[in-house]
Order: sequence, then structure tokens, then C-alpha cells
Amino acid sequence: MIKVSVMYPNQPGVRFDPDYYRTKHLPLIKSRMGAALKYYTIDKALMAAEGKPLGAYVAMCHLFCDSLDAYKASFGPHAQEIRGDIQNFTDGTSIHQISEVVVENSAKEAFSSESLSRT
Amino acid sequence: MIKVSVMYPNQPGVRFDPDYYRTKHLPLIKSRMGAALKYYTIDKALMAAEGKPLGAYVAMCHLFCDSLDAYKASFGPHAQEIRGDIQNFTDGTSIHQISEVVVENSAKEAFSSESLSRT
Repeated sequence: MIKVSVMYPNQPGVRFDPDYYRTKHLPLIKSRMGAALKYYTIDKALMAAEGKPLGAYVAMCHLFCDSLDAYKASFGPHAQEIRGDIQNFTDGTSIHQISEVVVENSAKEAFSSESLSRT
Repeated sequence: MIKVSVMYPNQPGVRFDPDYYRTKHLPLIKSRMGAALKYYTIDKALMAAEGKPLGAYVAMCHLFCDSLDAYKASFGPHAQEIRGDIQNFTDGTSIHQISEVVVENSAKEAFSSESLSRT
């Protein structure tokens, strides 16, 4: 299984609407990718006492698919539409990462595809 | 629920032993944190055709706990030992991020703690 991580750097003055991101943008991605998107997760930086995020990213999402090909085939045809929605919640630029999921959930150990040592 | 993400930047010449990371380092963290660590995940950057990782990080792990306090109370007393183990798998410097888990798994929707819009 693979994981596409989209991370929004915490930059001074950057606009980010977390409510739109959760209630509109990710559901849009889900509706377009269909069954190829096994599930997604959303993280939001915890704030320190002084109101600064505890990390480099204000928010992240992770999209899980069976394979890189499954991701490309399902996301690609809708990439333009999905990218066009980004301006509705942020003026920042995201960082993308595509990873192999080596351990999906250590407590379940239901999925532990390939060893981290194999490439 | 909160998520502590530890991300290892992909830097030229950086040493990273993914096998040690998966079979020794994360199990060490798990054994020291005990039940406070609900579960962890491990990601490893997919490689592009030319052998470059598809992303800024060569590997990541994510530690899930009920709260920031639960994380601090369980990790803190073992921080020195755990950090001492890092040299066994990398000479790089990791980036840390602590996030609120807004959507843990969109397919299950079993957990959707607080709205991304609340802070």
C-alpha cells in the first residue's frame, strides 16, 4: 500500500481554512478518486501555549491507495479540478511525498506489506 | 488523539538503516512507552525510476497517543535512551511535528475527535 502525504508548511501570514479542508476539499478528493482511495487521514498541528504550531506544517493529509498506479489512474484525471479547489482554503504551497506503507498500524499488524529494508 | 510525526529529511549522503529502524528502534519506543502508545506507523519514501525518493523525507514514523500529556509522560522518562539509539540507524537530523488527529481513518470514521476548525 502507498501513502500520498500532502503537507502545508507553516509560513508567516499563510492563509489556511481547516474547516473547508476537512468538509469540502478532502470529500472532493474522495468523490473523484472513488474506490481507489482506500481511506484518508487529516492531521492538524497542535498549538503551543503561545499559539505557534508544534511543527513545521500547519496541516497534513494522507491518501492511501493500493499502489502508485492506482493513485495515478484515479487522481490524474481529476488533478486539475482538485488543484483548482486549493485556492479555496489556502494560498500556501504544499509539499508532497509518496511513501510505501511499511507498518500501517503496529497494534493490528494486519498490514505490513514489504520490509522497510526492501526497495 | 494526537500524533507525533518524526520525519527524516532526504539529504545527500545521509545514512539511514531502514531495517534497524523497523525491527529495533520502533519496537524500543513501543516497549518503553507501553500502553500510552496506542500504535505507530512507518512510511518509507517510494523511489522514482532514477532512484531518488519521491519526497522530501526518506522515512517517517508516527506515534499515536490519547493526548499530548500521555505522550510526554510515557516518552519523557525514556527520551535519553531512545535518542541514544538514533545513531544506530542514521546520522541525519529528524524533524518532529505534533498534530491533533482530525480524521484518523475516513473509511471507518470511528474516530473524528474534534473538528479541524476548532482550536
